[in-house]
Amino acid sequence: MTLSIAHLGPSGTYAEAAALAYVKHLTQETGKQCLLCPYPSISQSLKAVAEGEVNFAVVPVENSVEGSVAMTLDTLWQLDRLQIHQAIVLPIAHALLSQATTIEDIKTVYSHPQALAQCQGWLEQNLPNVQLIPMNSTTEALQSLEQEPTAGAISSLRAAELYQVPVLAHPINDHPDNCTRFWAVSLQPSYQGSHTSLAFSLPANVPGALMKPLMVFELLNINMSRIESRPTKRVLGEYLFFIDVEGNLEQDSVKTALQLLTLHTENLKVFGSYALLPVESSLNFDSTISPPLSRGRL
Amino acid sequence: MTLSIAHLGPSGTYAEAAALAYVKHLTQETGKQCLLCPYPSISQSLKAVAEGEVNFAVVPVENSVEGSVAMTLDTLWQLDRLQIHQAIVLPIAHALLSQATTIEDIKTVYSHPQALAQCQGWLEQNLPNVQLIPMNSTTEALQSLEQEPTAGAISSLRAAELYQVPVLAHPINDHPDNCTRFWAVSLQPSYQGSHTSLAFSLPANVPGALMKPLMVFELLNINMSRIESRPTKRVLGEYLFFIDVEGNLEQDSVKTALQLLTLHTENLKVFGSYALLPVESSLNFDSTISPPLSRGRL
Repeated sequence: MTLSIAHLGPSGTYAEAAALAYVKHLTQETGKQCLLCPYPSISQSLKAVAEGEVNFAVVPVENSVEGSVAMTLDTLWQLDRLQIHQAIVLPIAHALLSQATTIEDIKTVYSHPQALAQCQGWLEQNLPNVQLIPMNSTTEALQSLEQEPTAGAISSLRAAELYQVPVLAHPINDHPDNCTRFWAVSLQPSYQGSHTSLAFSLPANVPGALMKPLMVFELLNINMSRIESRPTKRVLGEYLFFIDVEGNLEQDSVKTALQLLTLHTENLKVFGSYALLPVESSLNFDSTISPPLSRGRL
Repeated sequence: MTLSIAHLGPSGTYAEAAALAYVKHLTQETGKQCLLCPYPSISQSLKAVAEGEVNFAVVPVENSVEGSVAMTLDTLWQLDRLQIHQAIVLPIAHALLSQATTIEDIKTVYSHPQALAQCQGWLEQNLPNVQLIPMNSTTEALQSLEQEPTAGAISSLRAAELYQVPVLAHPINDHPDNCTRFWAVSLQPSYQGSHTSLAFSLPANVPGALMKPLMVFELLNINMSRIESRPTKRVLGEYLFFIDVEGNLEQDSVKTALQLLTLHTENLKVFGSYALLPVESSLNFDSTISPPLSRGRL
């Protein structure tokens, strides 16, 4: 049986690079063949898993510069049954690709809004007068660059090779330690690894309602490595909270925490326990910077 | 003396509508004339205040569906000295504007990514095959619609009137109670009103470090109405926290809280105390839905 893995396409995106790292790991673990399936959006990648079209989706969760990927969190909450099987941290090094001879000839730069934002400073300094055009992915514009000699695109060295577009500058991201964390999700239960993720909504109009779930973790000595709020989309000022903790679902303290959380949340969703996959440079990724493997502590 | 107010342009944006509501309030309060100054981005509006080019900027902070506006929070933290003088909650009702005769003729839809996201469901149902093109504002594409009869733009009824573009459908946002909260900021100190906003970073590698600042509010019975994390942009997994509380800077409990916070945060920035301005429908805004004036409680 072949395992299918959805990711944001077209080919050459950072999501595909993360999916490739996951495929290497899956093949080693299971001995099975894997097939990559590009989708036009993050939400469509996740829906493909929920509907049983594919076995896994590899989706971006947060970037070290631009923060959370709202679409991933919102779709995970909405689809309800997805479980996280792996976290993958990918170093991100952006390049400016173009058929132009020098960067002075460039009038337009295409890329995903997150990539444009991550190169903001470099663009302001080196190409202050170009028009920045947001795309659905870092690779969407690459096929049409040949017809547009005054256009450039921000993408990876890997994409430059795949699409045979010359690299005019690299790296051009403002923060050298730029990394993106991805999650590999599927419909199967997930309970291995030392990271656990969950999300909850809170009972309405209860002052101090957020403190109780957070005190649960504190009292049980469970370290929270991330808290992220998202709107419930019902009324302004009502939020969901996405929380990552250090701990495994089968650990007593985590089991107790979940029992206590059901008492102090309105709706609680547990996305499983998983490990972090270090991405090796041997995969020919576009950076030699190692991803930071230790997570922060709140 | 005329007061100048920066906002995201070009004319007709929701930021301009919020700025107009603020101008009405400012004129009543101060008796001064006000001048609106459109800027090409949110960060440029804020920088114009920091550099003394304008007196105020009105910038979006969060939308009830799409959540926080990362650029506003990141720029506020970075510019350091800006103070919030007013919160403005604007009801958002999007319309599809086009020179096309029917929606079936539309092949392309332009708008700001937040507006495209807020009409996602409507677009999938009514225009499943159109190309969605993100722009820097909801009004950026309006001037060129005349040359493109198969293109539409998502913007407000007010923008339709300003640019004389026919309305093909309204309202088209997926959530009827769609609202955006804006802040009016300036360099002057701000200490009037029952809302206070602040942000802090935490000492690195201290487990449970977030709990202490939150316990300060809890112990002093200060209600937190919002907590939002943003990356520090240094390493993945290190965050800043933006917090809104109910309380005024000159209140004893808030003064004590700030003293205690300096002990338990790495870097603390206080953005002032301010009131919430209800936006009246008499301003001819594009919605008759009243904004929810009560804030949530965490």
